[in-house]
Amino acid sequence: MKTCFECIPCIINQAILTLNLCNTDSITKRKVLQDLLKNLENIDYDLSPSENTDTAYDLISKYTGIKDPYSSLKKRHNEMALKIYPELEKILDKGKDSLYTAAKIAIAGNIIDMGISSSHSSQLDFNKIMENIKNISLAIDDFTDFKDILMSSDNILYMADNAGEIVFDKIFITQILKLDKNVKVSVKSGPVINDANKEDAVQAGIDKITEVLETGHNKIGNNPKYMSNAFLNEFKKADLIICKGQGNFETLDNTEAPVFFLLKAKCNCIADELGVNYLDIVFKKSDSFKDKK
Amino acid sequence: MKTCFECIPCIINQAILTLNLCNTDSITKRKVLQDLLKNLENIDYDLSPSENTDTAYDLISKYTGIKDPYSSLKKRHNEMALKIYPELEKILDKGKDSLYTAAKIAIAGNIIDMGISSSHSSQLDFNKIMENIKNISLAIDDFTDFKDILMSSDNILYMADNAGEIVFDKIFITQILKLDKNVKVSVKSGPVINDANKEDAVQAGIDKITEVLETGHNKIGNNPKYMSNAFLNEFKKADLIICKGQGNFETLDNTEAPVFFLLKAKCNCIADELGVNYLDIVFKKSDSFKDKK
Repeated sequence: MKTCFECIPCIINQAILTLNLCNTDSITKRKVLQDLLKNLENIDYDLSPSENTDTAYDLISKYTGIKDPYSSLKKRHNEMALKIYPELEKILDKGKDSLYTAAKIAIAGNIIDMGISSSHSSQLDFNKIMENIKNISLAIDDFTDFKDILMSSDNILYMADNAGEIVFDKIFITQILKLDKNVKVSVKSGPVINDANKEDAVQAGIDKITEVLETGHNKIGNNPKYMSNAFLNEFKKADLIICKGQGNFETLDNTEAPVFFLLKAKCNCIADELGVNYLDIVFKKSDSFKDKK
Repeated sequence: MKTCFECIPCIINQAILTLNLCNTDSITKRKVLQDLLKNLENIDYDLSPSENTDTAYDLISKYTGIKDPYSSLKKRHNEMALKIYPELEKILDKGKDSLYTAAKIAIAGNIIDMGISSSHSSQLDFNKIMENIKNISLAIDDFTDFKDILMSSDNILYMADNAGEIVFDKIFITQILKLDKNVKVSVKSGPVINDANKEDAVQAGIDKITEVLETGHNKIGNNPKYMSNAFLNEFKKADLIICKGQGNFETLDNTEAPVFFLLKAKCNCIADELGVNYLDIVFKKSDSFKDKK
């Protein structure tokens, strides 16, 4: 996906929110923003929004020396999500199609995204999340195709998105494992916004139920050019890939790989790209995958 | 008021919204944004947000050749406000203190602001406005002081803000005129966002009830350094000034003049400056005026 004009103010907003989280002094803030504006002046609109956004977080690390501003928030979000895990399992018991309900629970967890959201509250409104799961409707719903393809697949790669959200993913992953499928779960190799890392997967207990892979990079999304060779091999050999979140869509929308995207459209730019409304939720088969099958 | 870090993405957002309104081609959009980012790189945080925002609109005029992108929206907003004018008068009849109710009606009209709002819909939700007037509460309410000072003042200057809104102002101005006070109403001398110009004052019928002055400039807000000599004289000789909207506060918050600000805090930056919450409404006496009285 290419960068929109609207990405520019969004990138700057994300930088300001993160600088506030770092308690950065105003002189450093000025320097970061000045350097960021200089970079954005020559923004490459052909790159994905994720790649253009990486620059902002790189500059913040460089100027503040803080490599993981979201560290404590990530732990907190995992804890809070784990606390309601039994409630999530109960919803699953009530659902008619547990796999479909589990997919909806996984997408409900995608509400936990510090990058684009304007609030950095450490208190997540889990009542709202529970309410969301009940009322969730998918603007693009390729679940039937997903289920068909899942049944004939064995090497499944589940590309996680955020910390906290990964606890919700565990519900969906567990349901897929129950179908005697081989699922590997990928997380980022280093901190990037509140994306899940190995320690988050461990905190969520994902390592207890299946293998956790690292992508080999700490960039937003998952552009194959940044993947380690080991991870790229896993990516290539998967016969079904579940991609969570907006960053993954931004960087993999043109992939040849057999991907299903599960995300909430958190800005107009991505909503337009998907042909849905702002804040709509989609479970979307990638175009290349369609051609193949 | 000084410029906040958060003003930077806001200024860029305003530029994008206005370029969209101009139906600008994407090559021109890129150029405008590139030039704007170059300007913002060396932003002077000591200037008011309004002054730093002027640059964006100047660049849009320069690159697109469109001097008044909001022209038709302004006319439309005037028309729509005039349509509900009789309803506004009815609310006034019901209010216990007509002057106070009229002030609330005037501030309710401040919802019509194309600059900062994210929507450029040509359809205003006037039902919502009517509902707002009924439920309006002021986070800072210096009305009692205002009324006292009004009674002892004669040369009153009413500095209008937006087209459409100026119709709501007419209600308040009419009430002040009924007290046998001399009120002059100022509008911008040229187009700037959807700020009211002479033609809007005429469309609203303000010229039929009192004298309409031009500020001598088409900048956001009303920095005295941009006022014409003629208008600056009027500004200086007024013994009470009513300033509508955020731009006027941004550029006149440190004035020595006897100003009452009537505005809705449409961003966190101004809300923080006023010590109120985002979207709160204030009727605030200027500090210098307090010292004087």
